[in-house]
Amino acid sequence: MKALVYHGAGKRAWEEKPKPIIKAPTDAIIKISKTTICGTDLHIMKGDVATVTDGRILGHEGVGIVETIGEGVSSFHAGDKVLISCITACGKCDYCKKGMYSHCENGGWILGNMIDGTQAEYVRIPFADTSLYHISDAINDEAWVMLSDILPTGFECGVLNGQVKPGDTIAIVGAGPIGLAVLLTAQFYSPAEIIMIDVDDNRLEVAKKFGATKVLNSSDGKAVENVMKMTNKKGVDAAIEAVGIPATFDICQGIVGAGGHIANIGVHGKSVNLHLETLWSQNITLTTRLVDTVSTPMLLKVVQSGKLQPQQLVTHRFKLDQIMKAYDTFGNAAKERALKVVLTA
Amino acid sequence: MKALVYHGAGKRAWEEKPKPIIKAPTDAIIKISKTTICGTDLHIMKGDVATVTDGRILGHEGVGIVETIGEGVSSFHAGDKVLISCITACGKCDYCKKGMYSHCENGGWILGNMIDGTQAEYVRIPFADTSLYHISDAINDEAWVMLSDILPTGFECGVLNGQVKPGDTIAIVGAGPIGLAVLLTAQFYSPAEIIMIDVDDNRLEVAKKFGATKVLNSSDGKAVENVMKMTNKKGVDAAIEAVGIPATFDICQGIVGAGGHIANIGVHGKSVNLHLETLWSQNITLTTRLVDTVSTPMLLKVVQSGKLQPQQLVTHRFKLDQIMKAYDTFGNAAKERALKVVLTA
Amino acid sequence: MKALVYHGAGKRAWEEKPKPIIKAPTDAIIKISKTTICGTDLHIMKGDVATVTDGRILGHEGVGIVETIGEGVSSFHAGDKVLISCITACGKCDYCKKGMYSHCENGGWILGNMIDGTQAEYVRIPFADTSLYHISDAINDEAWVMLSDILPTGFECGVLNGQVKPGDTIAIVGAGPIGLAVLLTAQFYSPAEIIMIDVDDNRLEVAKKFGATKVLNSSDGKAVENVMKMTNKKGVDAAIEAVGIPATFDICQGIVGAGGHIANIGVHGKSVNLHLETLWSQNITLTTRLVDTVSTPMLLKVVQSGKLQPQQLVTHRFKLDQIMKAYDTFGNAAKERALKVVLTA
Amino acid sequence: MKALVYHGAGKRAWEEKPKPIIKAPTDAIIKISKTTICGTDLHIMKGDVATVTDGRILGHEGVGIVETIGEGVSSFHAGDKVLISCITACGKCDYCKKGMYSHCENGGWILGNMIDGTQAEYVRIPFADTSLYHISDAINDEAWVMLSDILPTGFECGVLNGQVKPGDTIAIVGAGPIGLAVLLTAQFYSPAEIIMIDVDDNRLEVAKKFGATKVLNSSDGKAVENVMKMTNKKGVDAAIEAVGIPATFDICQGIVGAGGHIANIGVHGKSVNLHLETLWSQNITLTTRLVDTVSTPMLLKVVQSGKLQPQQLVTHRFKLDQIMKAYDTFGNAAKERALKVVLTA
Repeated sequence: MKALVYHGAGKRAWEEKPKPIIKAPTDAIIKISKTTICGTDLHIMKGDVATVTDGRILGHEGVGIVETIGEGVSSFHAGDKVLISCITACGKCDYCKKGMYSHCENGGWILGNMIDGTQAEYVRIPFADTSLYHISDAINDEAWVMLSDILPTGFECGVLNGQVKPGDTIAIVGAGPIGLAVLLTAQFYSPAEIIMIDVDDNRLEVAKKFGATKVLNSSDGKAVENVMKMTNKKGVDAAIEAVGIPATFDICQGIVGAGGHIANIGVHGKSVNLHLETLWSQNITLTTRLVDTVSTPMLLKVVQSGKLQPQQLVTHRFKLDQIMKAYDTFGNAAKERALKVVLTA
Repeated sequence: MKALVYHGAGKRAWEEKPKPIIKAPTDAIIKISKTTICGTDLHIMKGDVATVTDGRILGHEGVGIVETIGEGVSSFHAGDKVLISCITACGKCDYCKKGMYSHCENGGWILGNMIDGTQAEYVRIPFADTSLYHISDAINDEAWVMLSDILPTGFECGVLNGQVKPGDTIAIVGAGPIGLAVLLTAQFYSPAEIIMIDVDDNRLEVAKKFGATKVLNSSDGKAVENVMKMTNKKGVDAAIEAVGIPATFDICQGIVGAGGHIANIGVHGKSVNLHLETLWSQNITLTTRLVDTVSTPMLLKVVQSGKLQPQQLVTHRFKLDQIMKAYDTFGNAAKERALKVVLTA
Repeated sequence: MKALVYHGAGKRAWEEKPKPIIKAPTDAIIKISKTTICGTDLHIMKGDVATVTDGRILGHEGVGIVETIGEGVSSFHAGDKVLISCITACGKCDYCKKGMYSHCENGGWILGNMIDGTQAEYVRIPFADTSLYHISDAINDEAWVMLSDILPTGFECGVLNGQVKPGDTIAIVGAGPIGLAVLLTAQFYSPAEIIMIDVDDNRLEVAKKFGATKVLNSSDGKAVENVMKMTNKKGVDAAIEAVGIPATFDICQGIVGAGGHIANIGVHGKSVNLHLETLWSQNITLTTRLVDTVSTPMLLKVVQSGKLQPQQLVTHRFKLDQIMKAYDTFGNAAKERALKVVLTA
Repeated sequence: MKALVYHGAGKRAWEEKPKPIIKAPTDAIIKISKTTICGTDLHIMKGDVATVTDGRILGHEGVGIVETIGEGVSSFHAGDKVLISCITACGKCDYCKKGMYSHCENGGWILGNMIDGTQAEYVRIPFADTSLYHISDAINDEAWVMLSDILPTGFECGVLNGQVKPGDTIAIVGAGPIGLAVLLTAQFYSPAEIIMIDVDDNRLEVAKKFGATKVLNSSDGKAVENVMKMTNKKGVDAAIEAVGIPATFDICQGIVGAGGHIANIGVHGKSVNLHLETLWSQNITLTTRLVDTVSTPMLLKVVQSGKLQPQQLVTHRFKLDQIMKAYDTFGNAAKERALKVVLTA
């Protein structure tokens, strides 16, 4: 089969690889229908993710059709249409029992990382019963593929951890795909104000269409000052960090109100300076999280009900065998005005 | 009347001051029976708390007898025995309605700070109905005075924010009075292991008597290593910071397990380096809090029931007019093996 | 002044009464701009509420302008535009401190019950600082008056107690004003399905417009059967009772799924038969509640933000001095197709 | 092998049965070391549990040694010492993912009910990876066997559902084994008062030793009156029903305070009369639950730490082949002063 293979920092190829086979009775082999590229895949391509080695097939998102199952798989059968979760969960370890699949002792984020991933014609999914989800044909597949990673990540790490409530004033720092996924799913809880902060006016325009009540271009370095003005110096109930650098984290700690939340989603490459000398008495809660995908069953219901159309995040579409070009487009997201790119087999 | 008065960094005196009078209909005047000295008072004496100015009577803890009440006070009457909360709550502002009395728009921590405090023969308590509590004679007054500040602080900022649960493994960094208050109140929730960390062997001995299942002297710089060994490399469910310096905060971020909590209590004078480059994916929750004293009614019930004897925190006793000497003793806590000192009028 | 006065079961009059005066320093006198009639007022008129005696001015809902304040009132001043809460909260008793204003030891539901109410030109509001709310002119007063009782009642007793979550399937039994208030506020949490059940097709039509995804006329006695069909025999996540009779309670216990909630709002005149012989193993949660109006600050924010337009509940409008006629209309709600009637001074 | 076999209402025998074998790859065969008899087994013997048919081996509690495992079992191996959960969880269905194992679509309470149980020399455990727990030799096996059912049942259905908190006043109605398990585990949360109610003075004596602060013999029909006196007419924060008949349920609804909880554990054979005509406005929460055993990992930690000694519930001991006599003893619990009987192979 053909697959997108990592060959060290900066090197990737769309090349022939052996079709995966069942290795454990709990495995399933999925024929990919649609996949996408994640910001994390770009991190990997920079050589920043040490666990990814030469020869690895990338990708941890996708929808497809079950091709074969191991004899221990009982919830899925050949021909079933499925959503692949970016997190593999064994369902038996202490972390899985607590619903913290991200730290599954036998899984976690392994697809396109420790084992071959979804940017291929076929993929092997371990612990299929607890890592796949049934999906229907009634909904656009582009919607479903957003549920592999980006929607649960925005929702769990941003919205749930930020404890967004009806009537809240929240700010989302970063209007990329993850920040926009936060924006879409924050509206499940009816905050009164959603302030979107980014340096890219195009993305802020998109944010407005997706439900932001205010947008703020932070290029002028005055984001904190502006948000404090907007909130009568009270600050926000939740500041959600969706970038992963000290500057955006600083905005969050500058705008969080007393009793408020900082929900970090960004993948940080270095430490940040936490201002405990002022925050110690501000009754704040700061959270970090690798997505657990425990909210996937709920998200499936909401998408199925038509209340959420995550396909609106898709800006570019390619055939699966054009994935080399799709990477180029996604790698120049700002210039290309790209949010999510979808690859169809 | 006599009172302990602040006269700038390093200067204090036990001197004559006018007896306080009712200024607002919601005030009460309390004749102090017992008071104590807080670590915060030592901070003030160093000149570190800018809001405290020359001439201020210090102290934010105490029990006493109601002397007079304003005409708007309905829950207390002259002669009532009362506990004074370190936090003054108006009961009407948005923060009070949310139970966040620490940020009361008309109160908060003002006693011995913005207004005269409890280290005196009499004190004026604003918003008496929502800032005083009835207490009985059945219990030792030394127990009650621990409920003005130290017990609710340890409980709310450490135990509640650390979400201590039955079966948990927790670590408390700092075995001073606040850390020991955490130790006492953490046991309300039956954690399986309580690891107490400090540099003072005497305090660690006390911690053992108070219920710590393990103690660790961190002078060797190996606290993180040792805790990770004790926990099979899993780290702790809650790491509670009860000192307020970068070194102890670092221990906390080094030992918190995936899915765990860092509950900061310490008053920090400078920022800390937060290792988001590793913590971003560890699903941790970090909290800060100035005590709200919303748990005071519960603590009163538990002390009344005999299940908690906070008077065991008291190591030294003085007459109120010996308070200058009491400050000397408390200021040399390690050498004097002092935890809490109680002053009796 | 003129007021609507109760004179025993079935007897009411719009008659002259003395204008109320400040009796306690925490009182305020409000000049009523708008008020409304509650289902509870009809109960009172039937003689069903023993605490209401001859001569009582009815009404517990309204917006108005502060006329005078007692000297202990600090958050409101003459001329302020205010929302009157149906629940009077002293802000100081144990229940108020817990946010359970409904059981305030000095207040609770007293307006138009134990003391004179809002269906008058003026009303005295005890504990004004904690029982009134500032409102702006930017929003239609008909919206605000829905926040005195009906919106917080639907939200707290139905939605919060029913723990409505994104993706849930919920059923609301009773499409009267309270049931419709549940319908509006349940959408704060984005349930996937909202099934509205009533015997009146007109009200079910209204429910559809207000966001019900399915409606069910239960006149045929097959509501349980039909809901079980709609839910693949799983039952609903929350069954919300908004009528107050055994038959509607029975629908709720018949359709609640394993792990689900029955949230009772209805004012019941007699006991119900609870089927513990089947429910004991179904992991259900059944709640009752007299509204606390703790959610009023949040509801004010949501209405202010424009995300909720509760004025859509208003079907009939009268001048305040036409209140005798308004009672007739509201008393024949089904025939008149009346939901809420608003009286304007 | 030998096993205790049900032969219709009133008929049981200790007789030869085929040794169980692996039927599915997720099965394990356990050699029983210790088992016990549950109140539910007595219900079965009365013919009250329709799902139990002639020939069924009874028992859903036990500890033992893994004899053989299916090829899909990965967390356990032959020779491992294990605790058997009374609830079988597949770990994959929607209910299991929510932690509601009691309603597992492929398991639930099936042992000694729909499939052969643990009162035998060997037992087959389906879904072994998610239905067994590792236990150590450091703790008395009599302690462990209490964790199969009675401890998680008392804790989850009584203590967790009753939301027992530090400082609470709670009442437990029924001082049998389940009520006593509630008593032991309620103390994890440090309630201030625990009132134990029963008709048997011997059991109330035991309750005192186990930590009840007050005991009440309800034979005089004055339990409600007495509890209201004890609580200054406020009622209790949690009333926990551990019997399963209308009379004990009535005590619970008579003593629950405003804002309080009724946590039902009892297996009811008929409906009860719920007094919504008074409770509708009392802000109460009533819960039912079949135990999920989600708290088993926590209970294992607490027992391992020595903070809980559930073996104190064991009053009688027999060899496994004396189980016919053990049933007689347990069936006359009051006369025999029996709580739990343990059978050792």
